[in-house]
Amino acid sequence: MSGTVVMKFGGTSVADAERIKRAARRIVAKREEGLRVVAVLSARGKTTDELISWAQEISPHPDPREMDMLLSTGERQSCALCAMAINDLGHRAISLTGSQAGIVTDTSHTKARILEVRADRIREALDDGRIVLVAGFQGVSTAKDVTTLGRGGSDTTAVALAAAIDADECEIYTDVSGVFSADPRIVPDARKLPMVSFEEMLEMSASGAGVLQLRSVEYARNHGVRIHCRSSFDDAPGTVVVGEDVTVENPLITAVTHSTGEARVTLTGVPDTPGVAGRLATVLAEANVNVDMIVQNEPVSEGAGADMSFTVPRDDLHTARTALEPLAAELGIGVHADESMGKVSVVGAGMKTHPGVAAKVFTVLGEAGINIEMISTSPIRISCVVPGDKVPEAVRALHSAFELSGPDTIRPEQPFGEFAS
Amino acid sequence: MSGTVVMKFGGTSVADAERIKRAARRIVAKREEGLRVVAVLSARGKTTDELISWAQEISPHPDPREMDMLLSTGERQSCALCAMAINDLGHRAISLTGSQAGIVTDTSHTKARILEVRADRIREALDDGRIVLVAGFQGVSTAKDVTTLGRGGSDTTAVALAAAIDADECEIYTDVSGVFSADPRIVPDARKLPMVSFEEMLEMSASGAGVLQLRSVEYARNHGVRIHCRSSFDDAPGTVVVGEDVTVENPLITAVTHSTGEARVTLTGVPDTPGVAGRLATVLAEANVNVDMIVQNEPVSEGAGADMSFTVPRDDLHTARTALEPLAAELGIGVHADESMGKVSVVGAGMKTHPGVAAKVFTVLGEAGINIEMISTSPIRISCVVPGDKVPEAVRALHSAFELSGPDTIRPEQPFGEFAS
Repeated sequence: MSGTVVMKFGGTSVADAERIKRAARRIVAKREEGLRVVAVLSARGKTTDELISWAQEISPHPDPREMDMLLSTGERQSCALCAMAINDLGHRAISLTGSQAGIVTDTSHTKARILEVRADRIREALDDGRIVLVAGFQGVSTAKDVTTLGRGGSDTTAVALAAAIDADECEIYTDVSGVFSADPRIVPDARKLPMVSFEEMLEMSASGAGVLQLRSVEYARNHGVRIHCRSSFDDAPGTVVVGEDVTVENPLITAVTHSTGEARVTLTGVPDTPGVAGRLATVLAEANVNVDMIVQNEPVSEGAGADMSFTVPRDDLHTARTALEPLAAELGIGVHADESMGKVSVVGAGMKTHPGVAAKVFTVLGEAGINIEMISTSPIRISCVVPGDKVPEAVRALHSAFELSGPDTIRPEQPFGEFAS
Repeated sequence: MSGTVVMKFGGTSVADAERIKRAARRIVAKREEGLRVVAVLSARGKTTDELISWAQEISPHPDPREMDMLLSTGERQSCALCAMAINDLGHRAISLTGSQAGIVTDTSHTKARILEVRADRIREALDDGRIVLVAGFQGVSTAKDVTTLGRGGSDTTAVALAAAIDADECEIYTDVSGVFSADPRIVPDARKLPMVSFEEMLEMSASGAGVLQLRSVEYARNHGVRIHCRSSFDDAPGTVVVGEDVTVENPLITAVTHSTGEARVTLTGVPDTPGVAGRLATVLAEANVNVDMIVQNEPVSEGAGADMSFTVPRDDLHTARTALEPLAAELGIGVHADESMGKVSVVGAGMKTHPGVAAKVFTVLGEAGINIEMISTSPIRISCVVPGDKVPEAVRALHSAFELSGPDTIRPEQPFGEFAS
């Protein structure tokens, strides 16, 4: 067998010396199958959180360029340590920073986007028989500054490298054994999905499934990179993310996802004049705030302002308020925030051809006594914003109502090879 | 006032958030005097030791290239954090890695030497009104790998940058208030020296004075960089290191220095044939072991091998033994090591024109009952290897015998300006 594989190990998979050595053995095992191996590593365990707390001790709102310089060190440490472990196993490894690996990004610090991958140095090292370790989550900007790709950016690094070097597969090793029909911490009998389509995975990542970072799935879809999401602690096959044409069936509902990190911003007295919504959206976009759902009510009477609500990740709430304040003051808009919101979503490619799913979702949540605050839909997803403390209950109710763990819909766990054939 | 200054802060001066902020205020104060400021920072407190212990958990003898990738992260963290603090003080700072700062080194990992400083990016940032923070201790090799300059390398970074940008002074901020006539932890009434010559400082650094790294003093002498070594915790003037022509007097003895980190290697049965010593020295040099004193005894009888002893830093002992083993086996040489040796030295530029110092050193140590194991001298230094546990006693005896704290030789502490005039 020959070919090229990218293996990505998350923070929990390299959290201590023993785990780094275990990752090293897994990498070496792939190499010994005859594959060319590039491994992308995250920072060890809680390193990134620790670095962030250091910055917060210094400054309430640290300079983003300097934040990137600080945060990028964690992955470099993991890679250097893993390279040492691989060398001790009798193979030749070389660790590269994002910059050395040719990950060129824009200059949007802490949330940079990859513009180009100049993988020459990786290719040379592979041709030289080396195992290449690349620090995830980071790159170098067109202004030659160190950038980071945002939380979970190591997945994107791995997928981008897989595309650049034309790898056969991008394996994402993590502390869960694959993608589940719901978070097993909330739904103990959630089942592992052997295969999901890019489209479903995109919706699931966007609506709270933490296992794969949204941008990495987008990148994989756009570049046709096959992702295999699996456990770093056992050899069982995980979940393969592939194009829709490859999946064998489109279940009505594939999974229930959720998020508890939502904040809702409500603007009251928004002038009912053309362009106001656009100006509001522009200041938020310029501040790099990810606005998710937006709901606007008609003004109750002629001349009265409208109410507008939207959700943002809770971490972006401060930025959002700061960005909105000058414009709100100018236009006489009231700004209110609710930090404790959650979101529950059902995702399934079969939904496209099957009406009535939304009605069922609303009924199930209503029967469970859970108030739906906001709703948004896509062709293969229905999301409801609910009070944060009601999220686990909502997930369990929907998972059960759509029989995702029931005998009618369960597909028996099979070895991956069989299933894929 | 205008001009350029390089300020270097050691690990204890940036050990926590408060100290980083204090360093930031000192840097800003310099800038507000109208100076262009480049600051070189070490890793926070025990960071480097912690990183080394991480590597040791992974591998008994970590790959040097990967060690450099790992160790270089500590200084980047300090610089990014300090830049955040400076930005919060209303100034514009930019942190640069050794590579970004243009520190080009050879490829000798963990002990790289600076080949060239391409300071364009620093100059541009200074011209733009910024305070520039540079990660000490590191550079980029001609093979485009991250390198480190060895322990204490941040001093060398600072001096090299001062030379490259033609700074008026290189200030080394540390946890001691200057260079002392002996280690105040051993000799409580040791006095601070307002001024020492490069030559004296070189001998002092080489013989154990930890305050300045040897290579940084060499670099400063070769490039005429004025060093001011001072405390980061108060504003008192420290010790200025200048050319010999600038110093006002040459005291007989300036200081007593010591080292407890010595190991002695004794080779027995060394064949008395030409070239053997050269071959031994070559394998040690190739392994990058710093051999200090060398003593060789004549063979006791025709055909018998000679004995040869030399000292190395204790940390290099393993490397030295590994390097010597094949040659020793080939030539039938016995290799013995003694890890617990120390060294005590007296340094003084006046010694050059004043015989009898060596005799006095030997007499003083003899009267104190301290056995001298090996001796080496330079025109301005006499060093004796003694048992490691006798070092403090030897230092106190010599400091007292040469009256370095006594009323006859003490120079009253004066404000630096007065003294320099």
